[in-house]
Amino acid sequence: MSGDPWAIGVDLGGTKVEVACVDALGHVFQRLRRPTDVAEGPNAVESEVAVAVRQLLGEGQGPLPVGVGIGMAGQIDPATGAVRFSPNLDWHDVPLQSDLHQALGLPVVVTNDVRAAAWGEWLHGAGQGCSDMVCIFVGTGIGGGVVSGGQMLSGCTNTAGEVGHIIVDLNGPPCTCGNWGCLEALAGGWAIARMAQDAITIDSAAGAALLKVAGGRPAAITARVVGEAAHSGDPLALDLVERVVQALIAGATSLINAFSPCRLILGGGIIEGMPELVGRIDQGVRRRALTAATTTLQVLSAHLRGDAGVVGAAALALRTFQGNGGQT
Amino acid sequence: MSGDPWAIGVDLGGTKVEVACVDALGHVFQRLRRPTDVAEGPNAVESEVAVAVRQLLGEGQGPLPVGVGIGMAGQIDPATGAVRFSPNLDWHDVPLQSDLHQALGLPVVVTNDVRAAAWGEWLHGAGQGCSDMVCIFVGTGIGGGVVSGGQMLSGCTNTAGEVGHIIVDLNGPPCTCGNWGCLEALAGGWAIARMAQDAITIDSAAGAALLKVAGGRPAAITARVVGEAAHSGDPLALDLVERVVQALIAGATSLINAFSPCRLILGGGIIEGMPELVGRIDQGVRRRALTAATTTLQVLSAHLRGDAGVVGAAALALRTFQGNGGQT
Repeated sequence: MSGDPWAIGVDLGGTKVEVACVDALGHVFQRLRRPTDVAEGPNAVESEVAVAVRQLLGEGQGPLPVGVGIGMAGQIDPATGAVRFSPNLDWHDVPLQSDLHQALGLPVVVTNDVRAAAWGEWLHGAGQGCSDMVCIFVGTGIGGGVVSGGQMLSGCTNTAGEVGHIIVDLNGPPCTCGNWGCLEALAGGWAIARMAQDAITIDSAAGAALLKVAGGRPAAITARVVGEAAHSGDPLALDLVERVVQALIAGATSLINAFSPCRLILGGGIIEGMPELVGRIDQGVRRRALTAATTTLQVLSAHLRGDAGVVGAAALALRTFQGNGGQT
Repeated sequence: MSGDPWAIGVDLGGTKVEVACVDALGHVFQRLRRPTDVAEGPNAVESEVAVAVRQLLGEGQGPLPVGVGIGMAGQIDPATGAVRFSPNLDWHDVPLQSDLHQALGLPVVVTNDVRAAAWGEWLHGAGQGCSDMVCIFVGTGIGGGVVSGGQMLSGCTNTAGEVGHIIVDLNGPPCTCGNWGCLEALAGGWAIARMAQDAITIDSAAGAALLKVAGGRPAAITARVVGEAAHSGDPLALDLVERVVQALIAGATSLINAFSPCRLILGGGIIEGMPELVGRIDQGVRRRALTAATTTLQVLSAHLRGDAGVVGAAALALRTFQGNGGQT
């Protein structure tokens, strides 16, 4: 390490915390991962994070980081960095930012984990150098982030970019958010698994191949199992993937017409497991979105994969604390 | 008129051009309206606009305007203010901004008519003082504008905010844009008329009341006719309005989850004809959108009605040419 500025990025999840040293180019040069024991409560998890950060600092050489960026699943108060609510950790109103600032003596910034990943893709991934970008991360759920006019959008309540909860079928199936017909309810990992299980219940013969991949247990059929079966040419799995593709094309079309991005970036476990979806979505949105909005549009795979969280959180910390006045 | 800065706002449509003198508070203090003869071609229409502006200037007293803002239906190149394409006037690549700048000797800025109306609502209407706002104008078509983080979004190709072309039913009816299932195809004025005409074709008895309001001619059934029949309690018209309301709730929900506005502003002829829709959409989005995104949300009627175009275009001119560095 030279004297170049760097930051610590933290990806805080329900089962593990990942902490990484990240330079200004977005390169991870040191990292460690620890389990999180959610049952112990917020204070114990915060201590765990602080211990992990100190451990990296102790091992590190050269100057201190400019700050610590934390991404975690949940609603974050943008003014205070407090966690309003995190379903994964069952936290309510935890002042994470100020607690860790006190514990570490370093500036800390907290953001939503998906927003952190979007920061990562924007500053160091497929969105680099781009002033108008929409990220869609398709995992168990669907989340994302939007950059417009060179600004990461946060909206009035810091919930802008909830791309999984735009409605693509106004009479569609129920979503975990309480609404129905959301993109996530038609194309998120949990929805794919549910659709597959429903299809097998209706027609067990058609589901034979899927059941075999899942070891004979309908409950073991996940989106990953569906993807594998589709790659093997199973008709039911191919039909399910087709429905997912059509939902993603519809959702992406809405986002393109609403935001007019220069780049649409697709990532998350479902996309990584079925990378062929990116090309199909690309073709589909060119058929469905406004021509004016797609002339210069690029549809790309996310670059950072599992590192997006720590790299993005660190990049946000660098941007926030390096004296360039925040995000714009 | 004192020495306060003011601007000229122009609303250029396919059948008329409206030109108004507007002060910095958004008040129209002089106006005139002339027919536009589209068949004469761009040069003739530009001359018509220049004559109208000069006429207002000749009548005016006090200082010159800081500039001229023009809103017109079509795709505008934000860098040059040229009209790439206007379906209403059948213009292709007309350098409107530079032509009128030359003709008038005043600074000119050109924007899309719906974007101009959104500027009007933001700076002088229901969105005043708000940094995160979504406008939906429901007329024959559906358009709008989005302000996020204190910035009017334009996107990569200046088409951000095409709120009528987000998909609310991925297998829905065809839209004029070439896509299908768009909000506009389920709730725009042309779609309401088409749905009513289709319903009458299928069941002429149920359509008797609608047909009567339309003088017995199915082709004369417009969205306005449907609105009037609904106000009289006609079951078919009420059913059609219910479908429109559900589509608008779904579209508004998507926009709320995507942008997290502080205010959702509803305007346009369909909303003005059925103002009760605003309350119903308000209730509906609180049921369907993410709770976090609706806690502080206000759902409001647009204030400026027919004046939004000229007031918004003038406000944009004031903002652009008054030395405060554009929109942010």
